[in-house]
Amino acid sequence: MDILKVATNSNPNSLAGALAATIQEHHRAEMQSVGAGALNQAIKAIAIARGFVAPHGIDLVCIPAFSEITIDGEERTAIKLFVEPRR
Amino acid sequence: MDILKVATNSNPNSLAGALAATIQEHHRAEMQSVGAGALNQAIKAIAIARGFVAPHGIDLVCIPAFSEITIDGEERTAIKLFVEPRR
Repeated sequence: MDILKVATNSNPNSLAGALAATIQEHHRAEMQSVGAGALNQAIKAIAIARGFVAPHGIDLVCIPAFSEITIDGEERTAIKLFVEPRR
Repeated sequence: MDILKVATNSNPNSLAGALAATIQEHHRAEMQSVGAGALNQAIKAIAIARGFVAPHGIDLVCIPAFSEITIDGEERTAIKLFVEPRR
């Protein structure tokens, strides 16, 4: 399962589609964002994806966590969002 | 139960404390943010609060939703985050 890497210029609707597809296939998804703008798009995508999966009787929750990653040799703090159906 | 209103300059650690206290008392919490900076602080607070409640055998999930609110007579789109123990 690929990690959905989210950028400030990511389209929340497209992301939501990818998220819903990943959930349908793998029953969970993982998103990664660096910075407030990217995180904003990621959370909007989850809110939109809730509407995509609701007709299938699924609601989504997300679990945020900090993650240290290296971009171009520089250490950055990313936020990872684990997304899964609400139990 | 009060809604935790989050601003760009909110301290994620303080917010996490308020969040953990609200969860302990009401078994759920609701946060509201307007803008990417505020949402960033809110999500960081949830990630931190997971560490605060983990020793009590609780993990937290959040459910994001759009919400139209009025600030100073102007309509804005807020992101609401419903936070609850993972089942």
